[in-house]
Parts: sequence; structure tokens; C-alpha cells
Amino acid sequence: MNFNMIAYILGNIIRIEAALLAVPAFVSIWYQEAKAASAFVATIIACLMVGTVLVSREPENKRIYGREGFVVVALSWIVMSVLGALPFYLSGSISGYVNCFFETVSGFTTTGASILQEIETLPKSIQFWRCFTHWIGGMGILVFMLAIMPLGDERTMYLMKAEAPGPLVSKLVPKVKSTAKILYTIYIVLTLVEMILLFAGGMPFFDSVVHALSTAGTGGFSVKNSSIAEYNSAYFEYVITAFMLLFGVNFNLFYLMLMKDFKNVWKNEELRYYIAIVCIATALITIDISRYYPTVEGSFRHAIFQVAAIMSTTGFVTANFDLWPEFSKTLLYCLLLLGACGGSTAGGIKVSRFVILLKMIRREISHIVHPRSVNLIKLDGYKVDEDSIRSVTGFIILYVLILLGSFMLVSLDNFDFITNVTAVTTCLSNVGPGLAMAGPVENLSFFSGFAKIVLCLDMLLGRLEIFPIIMLFAPSIWRKSYM
Amino acid sequence: MNFNMIAYILGNIIRIEAALLAVPAFVSIWYQEAKAASAFVATIIACLMVGTVLVSREPENKRIYGREGFVVVALSWIVMSVLGALPFYLSGSISGYVNCFFETVSGFTTTGASILQEIETLPKSIQFWRCFTHWIGGMGILVFMLAIMPLGDERTMYLMKAEAPGPLVSKLVPKVKSTAKILYTIYIVLTLVEMILLFAGGMPFFDSVVHALSTAGTGGFSVKNSSIAEYNSAYFEYVITAFMLLFGVNFNLFYLMLMKDFKNVWKNEELRYYIAIVCIATALITIDISRYYPTVEGSFRHAIFQVAAIMSTTGFVTANFDLWPEFSKTLLYCLLLLGACGGSTAGGIKVSRFVILLKMIRREISHIVHPRSVNLIKLDGYKVDEDSIRSVTGFIILYVLILLGSFMLVSLDNFDFITNVTAVTTCLSNVGPGLAMAGPVENLSFFSGFAKIVLCLDMLLGRLEIFPIIMLFAPSIWRKSYM
Repeated sequence: MNFNMIAYILGNIIRIEAALLAVPAFVSIWYQEAKAASAFVATIIACLMVGTVLVSREPENKRIYGREGFVVVALSWIVMSVLGALPFYLSGSISGYVNCFFETVSGFTTTGASILQEIETLPKSIQFWRCFTHWIGGMGILVFMLAIMPLGDERTMYLMKAEAPGPLVSKLVPKVKSTAKILYTIYIVLTLVEMILLFAGGMPFFDSVVHALSTAGTGGFSVKNSSIAEYNSAYFEYVITAFMLLFGVNFNLFYLMLMKDFKNVWKNEELRYYIAIVCIATALITIDISRYYPTVEGSFRHAIFQVAAIMSTTGFVTANFDLWPEFSKTLLYCLLLLGACGGSTAGGIKVSRFVILLKMIRREISHIVHPRSVNLIKLDGYKVDEDSIRSVTGFIILYVLILLGSFMLVSLDNFDFITNVTAVTTCLSNVGPGLAMAGPVENLSFFSGFAKIVLCLDMLLGRLEIFPIIMLFAPSIWRKSYM
Repeated sequence: MNFNMIAYILGNIIRIEAALLAVPAFVSIWYQEAKAASAFVATIIACLMVGTVLVSREPENKRIYGREGFVVVALSWIVMSVLGALPFYLSGSISGYVNCFFETVSGFTTTGASILQEIETLPKSIQFWRCFTHWIGGMGILVFMLAIMPLGDERTMYLMKAEAPGPLVSKLVPKVKSTAKILYTIYIVLTLVEMILLFAGGMPFFDSVVHALSTAGTGGFSVKNSSIAEYNSAYFEYVITAFMLLFGVNFNLFYLMLMKDFKNVWKNEELRYYIAIVCIATALITIDISRYYPTVEGSFRHAIFQVAAIMSTTGFVTANFDLWPEFSKTLLYCLLLLGACGGSTAGGIKVSRFVILLKMIRREISHIVHPRSVNLIKLDGYKVDEDSIRSVTGFIILYVLILLGSFMLVSLDNFDFITNVTAVTTCLSNVGPGLAMAGPVENLSFFSGFAKIVLCLDMLLGRLEIFPIIMLFAPSIWRKSYM
């Protein structure tokens, strides 16, 4: 294990975080929020100090492998959250460091589950930092580092693989650095377009900025206590729905579209399944909730908003779907597990893994019918190798086991079954709202510190797709022979 | 597809069912229950007629393969349930054929979920038939047929593989017929021992018989509305606990013990995990519920009884665990999914599959740490081949998908989340009780006919371990070229 290189990368990440913190620091000065401003400045100084110590010794051997990639990504996200929680803590906006840490992990992992009961009275810069963490976490801070830093070695692919969501990570162009730059450019442009559309529709400038940041990362933090429902505007709801769905699409496809390669976009099976699932779920929920809303348009708008919000794992809210009929709630719960496309900013199991699973099951059945047949699993016309299939099934099984394990640990708080199971699922899938006490108009402040730490771990496991975090606990990785 | 042979086997199964129905018919005559007696006799006549038509033409080609094995097992269980429901229907003991069918499927699949609110006023012979279906379904009627019929061809192994629970089915002795005979002998002896122990402890003779039948099949139907709690006897509870745990053990191990091969018994990893899980779960629940019961012995007795009842998928009840703390309920829910050992009469995912999963995950992690390493998965010291691993993961994934799909369908009834999810899980795992409205002191009569059919399908899917039932819906199996 190349510890020097791990420390070096970690130091760089922390220095980047210091630079990113300059943005909310500027907001705090702009709005003359003295307490928040000093909290941001203190955090920046802390980050620069820790970061500078870690990067002070440039390692001679810059080689890293898969295992270093996983470890560095896991450690970065934990350290980023530990430091990113300081502004909340130092400014006194959120009481108790565990709560500050929860809110930050929820931000970076783009979950959007909150322990805050009252958001609107927070300083503007603190509100901004909450939503900005979504934006940073959405595309990933390591991908950001790859885009701007001269790390050179092509082995940085391991970093990207460990941080990027989805079962099959590929480079858009031969160089990792260029790929990271393209991804961030698309990300920034889409965010700006949403911001402009919201502002043009009459949303205050500040609100447009934070909601665009929050949508882009598929996070879900809002500056309003009642989320998007507050504005009571069909225009905002449709714009945000469209962008939630867009940010749930594999970013590679946007690149292909820019290259005018529409054939390969349409060949993408994950996209077709994603569109189909959104359409079917929206239709079913529209019918199911039709007696709750005066117009069909109203039912449709709420249905597609919540389907998009849950599937893209954003978690914005326009309706208290905890009051909807059981079928709609159950369907939303299943979408909570599923998530959107790999290579997007969304969480969850991902549609592509689901498609591979369906094909795997079809293969198992045909294997029973014709025992001697050899069936390949293809995605987008290409063979999926057995290693990838094994890692998809391993992922799903770990997902279920972690869900059940966390469910058991959280149940020690003795809240009800639905609250526990949906809180755990929504955190693991990086969505935000669950049902019952964890419902869309509630918050998770009631959980004990222990349960909050479990949920933080779930959010990190979900965002980093399990393996990096698990690696930290694997004894074999820390054994001398691999150091 | 060898349809002649399928019809021939099916006919034999139905004739065996007619013979087995003679037992409750005799009970009805003994207790002078005229209505029930005529219902049993009418059902026997119906079975004999249908059975005789189907076996009238002995097929020339008796060859069957895996696919025929699956189809014949699936069809047998459905036909057995359709006919087995007739005594309930014709005697007027249960109103509505769907309810009768539900009760019969719940019986044969050894689930023990009931739609009856009042059991104690039923005719004795009907009470007996309910519990006898558990006993028949526990070891499997096809295995019974193999034990007594001169089918000759060694390909009958396919039948046994399709009906017997667990990921790895093996013959005890070279001949399938002898294996089936040994299994049934062990089954009968253990049932008799339990019956005698209960009777010796003061349980009425009839009650001892039916509860022994119900325990043996790991079913859970009782002749008392409040199940085993009715007797309020620590002795009965410990005896039944012991036998529930025993019937959750792989029967091959009993054979090895008879052969005095204790070394291989102890080498059995599934057994060791099973014992460990029972001990840990019992300890945790004993502590968790200690404030609910006056003595530690009381807490321990209720804890181990419910752990044994849920894990062995029997589902007897001595305490309304729906009122226990959330942690105990959550732990029981996880055990509900798990089940006991393969090759036993229990349902659920099975401990051996769980062990293989854990080893699979360990392998995935070590594959990331050392990409070039090749790790074999071993169970009991033997290599588990990749085909078996694939089929275990396929099984688990289908289990989860079927659970979520049924959960969605059942939610159309608009009962609450916990009721729906635990009812589906308890049916799929063949346990019986769930939580909330599906709780241990409740019954499932409130569900709509549609939901009941979904739950019946889940019970059959669970008992036959998914693939046989799925086969019936696979279009490729019905294609001309394979007929």
C-alpha cells in the first residue's frame, strides 16, 4: 500500500476543499454574516494547515493500484465531511457536532436527509454551503481534482473508477484528465441552464442558485422548510422535474450527443429502461392519486415530480407522499432502491445493474431449460464479462445485507418499523425522504447519535458504492505484506 | 418436453393424495362428523377419477430431464392444493373457495398463515387435515412417491432436486428410491418421538398428534386459536422448541449420525452457523425483552421459542412478539428471511445460501485487494462450483425481486406498509406470522381475493425455491422445439 501517495492525494483534496470553501465565505461577507464568515475563514485555515502538512513531502513513487484508489476515495470523503462540518459547528447554526457531521455527509453524498427543523432562519451563507456540498459531492471531488491537477500518471483511472457511480465506468476520451474536464464542463453548463430557467421564471436569484446546485448533485437540500412545495408554481416544478431527470442520465450520453453520435445514445439500454420506468411509474401513480387532486394535470405533475425526485435520488418534495395510497408509497419505495443511471450524479442500485440482473435471471432460467447452452449477457450490444457480472451481484447482495444490518442497528432506538426501514433505505440510496417519521415533511433529528452515525455510514456506503468503505474494514488490506 | 410422462407422474401424485386423504376420512368417521366425512369421501373419489384418467396411458418413453422435473413438481403442487382444498369447501368449514385454496396452499407449503379467525370449533377431522397437509408438504409428496413407487429410472433424481429445499441436494445412498425411504423413515420416527413426548407431558392425544405433524413439517397450524400459548406449559414449549430446531436441520446429518459418522456432522458448516445464529439471536432477544417478563427463564423461553419458530419457519406462537421492542421485531424479521438449513423441512433463503453469500463477498473484496488471485469458495471443505454459486446468487436476487413485486401488488389493498411487507415475507419464507395486521395473534382474512392469490403464489414460490414455478411462466419451455 502506497501510504505516501495516499497522504499526498488526501492533502490535495483538503486544499481543494479550502478553495471551494472560499465561495460560501464570499457569500457570508456579501450578506454581512459575521459569525458565519469567521466560521468559514477558520475552517479554510484549518484545511490549509492540514492539507499543507500532508502534501509537504511529494512521494517518489506515484504508482497506485485499485486498492489505493478505494482507500484514498473512502478516506477523502470521510475527511472532507469531518472538515466540511466545521462551518455548521463553529457558526453555531447546528447544535452538536454529530448533527453537523450528519448534515455534511448528507450534503456531500447528495442524500439531502436533514436533522434541521428550521432552515429558513439560517444565515444565507450556511444555506448556500449546504446546497454547495451537494454540487461538490454530485460529480465527485476526486474527479474535480483529476480535472485540475497535474497528476500525470494514467493510473489515476483507479481514482475515477472508485468514485464514479455505476457498474461500468469508462473514459470518454483516452486521457483521464480530459474526461474529468469534459464531465465537469457538462455539469457546470447544465447547472447554469437550470439556474437561468428558474431565475427567468421568477424565482429569487439566491434561491435559483441553490436549487440548481442541489438539483445538479441530485441532493435535495432546499432553502425552504417545505422544499419546492413552498413556491406553489407549476413552472418551477416542471423545470426542476426535467433537470432531476436529466441529472439522472449517464453523463457519457450528453458527451455523445455533443459529438452528434445519436445512434449510440439510442442504443443505450440503460437509458431506454430508465425512460420506460419513469413513464410507467408516473402513469401508475397519476391514476392512483387522481382522487387526491382536483385536476389530472395536478396529479400528473405531483406524480412525475416525485418519481423524478425519488428515482434521480434528489428527494425534493412538492407533496407529502406519505399520505398517498399504499400502492404509490410502495412503488416509490421500490424506486428508492433502484435509483437512476450509472455515470450520473444519482445514487441507488442503478438501472444498469437492474438490467444486468434481469438478464442474469433470464440466463439462469434458460440454463435450466437447456443445460448445455452457453449464454452471454450483452449490454448495449457488447458482452458483459463474468467479472463485471460477479461484481454486480456482489454489490446487490451487499446492498441488501447492509440494509438489513443497518435496519437492525437503527431499530435499537425503538422507533417504528417503517421509519427505520425507510430511513435506512433512503440514506443508503442517497435520496433523502422516507416514510412515517422519516417522511417527506419530517426530519431525522429524533434519532440517537448512534443511529445517526449508522445512517452517515450508510450514506457514504451508498455514494461510494460500498466497496471503498468496506475496504477500510478489510483486515487484509492493512496487512504488512501489502504496505 | 415429455408431456406423457408429466401426466403420468401427475396422475400418480393425485392417486397418492387420495390415499393420504383416507387418514382424515377415517378421523371424521371416528369422531362421527358426517358432513366432513362426506366431504373427504367426495374428494377421494374426485382424486381417484382424475388420477386414473392421467395414469391410464403408461408412457413408452419415461425419460425426463431437469425441465420436466421442474414442471412436474410445480404442477403437482398446484393440483394437490386445488384438490386438497375441496374438503374445506365441501364440508362448509371455510367459506369461499379462494379462502379454502389459501389455507391448503399454506398447509402444503408448511407456511401456516391462516385466514381463519376461529379454529377450535372446526370439526376434528378438518383440524387434522390442516395439520396433516403440513406433514405431507414438509418432506414433499414427490419424495414420498419416489419412496414407494417403482419408477425405476435413475432420472427421478431430477424430481427430488426440484422439490427438495436447499442449494445443494445430494443423495444419501446411490439409489434415489432408497434415499427417499431413509428420509421418510427419519421423518416418521422424529414425528413419533415428539408426539410421545407431548402426550407423556399431559397434552391430549389428538393435540399431541396434530402438533407433532405441524412441527415436523415446520408448518405452524395449531388446533388452538392462541397456538401453543394456550397450554401455558413450559414443558410443551421446550419440547416443541427442541423439535422445531431439529426439523430445521439438514436430514442428511441425521443419517450420518445414524451411521455414527459424527466427524462429518461436525464438519458441516451450515449446522455450525445455524447453531451460532440461534444462540446469538436468542441471547439478544432475551436481553431485549427482559423487562417484559418477570423471570429471566421466562424471557429466555419466549425468546428461544420464537427464534426457533421463526428460523425453522414453523411459526408457532407463545407470545405476541408484535408488542416486543423494535430491535427484537427487526431481528425476527431478518430471521424470517433467513430460514434454517437446506435439506430440512424449513423454508426461507437457507443458512447454507447465506454462508455461500458471505464467502462470495469475501472473495469479491479479496479480488479487489489482489486482482490476480484466484479464490475458491469452499463449503464443508469441498469446492463449490461456479454454477452452484451462480444459482445461489440468482436465487437470492429473484427472492428479493419477488418480494418487492408481491409487496407492490399486495399494497393495492391499501393496508399499511408493515402489514404488507411482513405478510409477503412470511408467505415467501413459509413461516406464517408477520407483524401489525399480519401479526402473530392475527389472521390474513382481511386481504382481498387478489392479494390472497398473490400470497398463495409466494408460498408456492418459497416452498419450491422459485425456479419450478418460474418455469411455468417461461415461454421458452413451452416452445414446440422442446416438446
